[in-house]
Amino acid sequence: MTELLSNHVAGRWQAGTGAGTALLDPVLGTELVRVDATGLDLAEAFAFARETGGAALRALSYKQRADLLAAVGQVLQAHRDTYYEIATANSGTVKNDSAVDIDGGLFTLAQYAKLGQGLGERRHLVDGDAARLGKDPLFQSQHVRVPTRGVALFINAFNFPSWGLWEKAAPALLSGVPVIVKPATAWLTQRMVKDVIDAGVLPPGSLSVICGSSKGLLDQLQPFDVVSFTGSAETAALIRSHPAITSRSVRVNIEADSLNSALLLPGAASDAVDLLVKEVAREMTVKSGQKCTAIRRVLVPQAQAAEIGAAITARLAKTTVGNPRNESVRMGALVSREQLQSVREGLQLLQSQAQVLHDGATHTLVDADPAVACCVGPTLLGLKDAAASDAASVVHAHEVFGPVATLVPYRDAEHAFALARRGEGSLVTSLYGSDAGALACAALELADSHGRVHIITPDVGALHTGHGNVMPQSLHGGPGRAGGGEELGGLRALNFYHRLAAIQASTAVLARLEPASAA
Amino acid sequence: MTELLSNHVAGRWQAGTGAGTALLDPVLGTELVRVDATGLDLAEAFAFARETGGAALRALSYKQRADLLAAVGQVLQAHRDTYYEIATANSGTVKNDSAVDIDGGLFTLAQYAKLGQGLGERRHLVDGDAARLGKDPLFQSQHVRVPTRGVALFINAFNFPSWGLWEKAAPALLSGVPVIVKPATAWLTQRMVKDVIDAGVLPPGSLSVICGSSKGLLDQLQPFDVVSFTGSAETAALIRSHPAITSRSVRVNIEADSLNSALLLPGAASDAVDLLVKEVAREMTVKSGQKCTAIRRVLVPQAQAAEIGAAITARLAKTTVGNPRNESVRMGALVSREQLQSVREGLQLLQSQAQVLHDGATHTLVDADPAVACCVGPTLLGLKDAAASDAASVVHAHEVFGPVATLVPYRDAEHAFALARRGEGSLVTSLYGSDAGALACAALELADSHGRVHIITPDVGALHTGHGNVMPQSLHGGPGRAGGGEELGGLRALNFYHRLAAIQASTAVLARLEPASAA
Repeated sequence: MTELLSNHVAGRWQAGTGAGTALLDPVLGTELVRVDATGLDLAEAFAFARETGGAALRALSYKQRADLLAAVGQVLQAHRDTYYEIATANSGTVKNDSAVDIDGGLFTLAQYAKLGQGLGERRHLVDGDAARLGKDPLFQSQHVRVPTRGVALFINAFNFPSWGLWEKAAPALLSGVPVIVKPATAWLTQRMVKDVIDAGVLPPGSLSVICGSSKGLLDQLQPFDVVSFTGSAETAALIRSHPAITSRSVRVNIEADSLNSALLLPGAASDAVDLLVKEVAREMTVKSGQKCTAIRRVLVPQAQAAEIGAAITARLAKTTVGNPRNESVRMGALVSREQLQSVREGLQLLQSQAQVLHDGATHTLVDADPAVACCVGPTLLGLKDAAASDAASVVHAHEVFGPVATLVPYRDAEHAFALARRGEGSLVTSLYGSDAGALACAALELADSHGRVHIITPDVGALHTGHGNVMPQSLHGGPGRAGGGEELGGLRALNFYHRLAAIQASTAVLARLEPASAA
Repeated sequence: MTELLSNHVAGRWQAGTGAGTALLDPVLGTELVRVDATGLDLAEAFAFARETGGAALRALSYKQRADLLAAVGQVLQAHRDTYYEIATANSGTVKNDSAVDIDGGLFTLAQYAKLGQGLGERRHLVDGDAARLGKDPLFQSQHVRVPTRGVALFINAFNFPSWGLWEKAAPALLSGVPVIVKPATAWLTQRMVKDVIDAGVLPPGSLSVICGSSKGLLDQLQPFDVVSFTGSAETAALIRSHPAITSRSVRVNIEADSLNSALLLPGAASDAVDLLVKEVAREMTVKSGQKCTAIRRVLVPQAQAAEIGAAITARLAKTTVGNPRNESVRMGALVSREQLQSVREGLQLLQSQAQVLHDGATHTLVDADPAVACCVGPTLLGLKDAAASDAASVVHAHEVFGPVATLVPYRDAEHAFALARRGEGSLVTSLYGSDAGALACAALELADSHGRVHIITPDVGALHTGHGNVMPQSLHGGPGRAGGGEELGGLRALNFYHRLAAIQASTAVLARLEPASAA
């Protein structure tokens, strides 16, 4: 029997009482560890986090909590090699792809540690200036933000066991709100939490991890708790329908499906075209396309579609796929047989409306058994013309969570914007061109339907941060199908974990709200 | 047969095809008008607002939309006397109470017209400064807010037919988002919309009104629409469970039940006590206690409870109740027999845990037939000691929506804060005392569980804006039981009607986002 991973709740490590579910190596098919959360006293777990963890964190200033984040970062940094080993084994990712998750998490933690330093020794945030409530300036309204007196429950996705935890936990802990994480890919998340807990750098109750089923977790949520979910739209709808959300006003943040696009503006010069081709091929293959921000639709002028399809295909053909332990491999595995099956079914669905321009099935796997390994080559599909782009309902609605994208030809800029909006709300679109004015206008046109607009011009071709990379400085989330959530965006992320309140009082009382009075 | 009020949707006035539901005079019991929405083409109604209304509003700058709000205000001002007549007839309110609704709406409109002027000739909002995304300053992230490309559906409560419309419509229209309002007390809302539409001051599709049932309205909501609901927690839960919200990520704002409190700090001098007594008696009787912000629980030091109960009672005893057309009447009717019945049942429930200190049933109605009029005198209940305050679960959970409050004795400040929090999230608490430091600390203690903390000290006794008055400068909303919504708060109100997006680009492109490029 493999190791049964323990859960950390109510301030202690507790094993589930069930047989456990095995986590497998997606390349070798071997069993790695088991997870189980059967028999945990969830009421105790949530109460301990809420009361013990919450009180301890709220007693600290933002600067002190920022120091905690820095200490967490140091602990993780010391065990970085182990995390890479776990990622290779349990996620089947090549080193560069593991880095997106592991180093991405560390970078985000470090950024929030730095932002928190700037907030200083206060324990509430001032929001805007005081506003007069009448002609007499003696009585005014001052808005403040104070940490919510509850727990933050994270129900996370399989594709980012490290970054997915820390991009949420950093702003939560900095806000003074304890965290309970229920990861999908439990091993790496559990190990990171274990290292942090064992190092004793966080107050008891600040950070809990539950490996295994999410059954019963939502039942524990109270009015001042918050829940942040990353995953499928179906599960998101179930979470939103739970009484905790419908009747107890528990705040919920959802990041779900997204049909992100890359858009080459009309009349772009060849250097802009080259940047699009490079970015699309890169985004399709990084983490085997298992990124919620990956490019799924490539919008290009109708007349250039054939040329661009050929250029992307040429790049994809060179991608070596297989066992990430082999140095020559550029793209590793999907996370599981279920995901492999889901990608195959999604491809079938897309092929009912689109043609195959490059077939991932033609890639020979390196050092991996096709009968066992969850590996698949990158596939580029294409729609034959602008009319087909309008008709291809599935291409705008069904996200295939793997190394798959579709070339979508458009007639003119307005048509391109309309097609991008057919995603009904996406996390990100990237724009390619060199006319700054046209790009700025396009960005504002698409800003209401996208949480992020990433613009790649030749002058930043070598230094832009990538279509799919989520930077802590920028909002992560998108409207509609993407779930309507708002994460990151620098200090904006703290809002989710704070409550806004207006304090109406005489200027003498408002003067006492400043840090000194909170000490 | 009385007049059947028409609905304004899809740019034209349309009568329902059903027999209609009668609206009654709550004092005289006579039928006033009828409402009906049977047979309306709701798909056409929403599409027209979304496409025709939305496009017209988004084409305008914030300053131009602010001019529209000012024009709306002028139209309404010209018909003000009619609105007071309708309020007396359909809401049964005395003139001062009608003013809270009618003039409160006009004031809020005027405030947003003024705020909008300050936003100038731009069509998007810049959110914060640009942030570097790496060492090289050439590539940065700039957050913007752009109007959502959908409609704002308002499902409103019976108690504020005027203010309830305009406090939501002002920020929506200023944001460039068309409004569809479904009022509960349809007559005044419908008349105001009618006057505005007839005056032709708004672009077609900007403002629609549907009188009658809300059946089918939510089915029309698309991912970029938003819905704002004011009313019961039960209806709120139904709205939140609708597929538009659970599956289409339609943004929802809820303002529901609230057990607001007034809190006299320990050791307060007699002038602070007097201010509490005056404010409680006033808040209980304004609009017959039919205000979501009204004081429901009066938290006082145990030793002072008897004295304060007697002082409030003395004031309440002087309140004349009855027909608002009689000049001597200070408090008019509840809105309907159903509400009267609900208040009576609620009083029964509270009396299972609290004693009657002043019985509203002892008030003789002036110029009103008790068998017909929906009038009831103010009732003050009281808990006998601090232990009873802990045990009185119903007092902290059940909102009686009428002229009813309960005196809740506490042991010490910590106990008082804990009792205030027993409301599990409220719209507002008011604090009374004269120690500025203690009041500021108390405000921060209660800010996470209250959307607004209103502090009344002797120096502002004559000029504070009132516990229950919602000022457009301050947040309106509260966590938990209060629904978790955020309305008003000056320009913060615009956020609900905008989408936040990060634009990552070279400094050359970001420079073109400024107003000139949007023109």
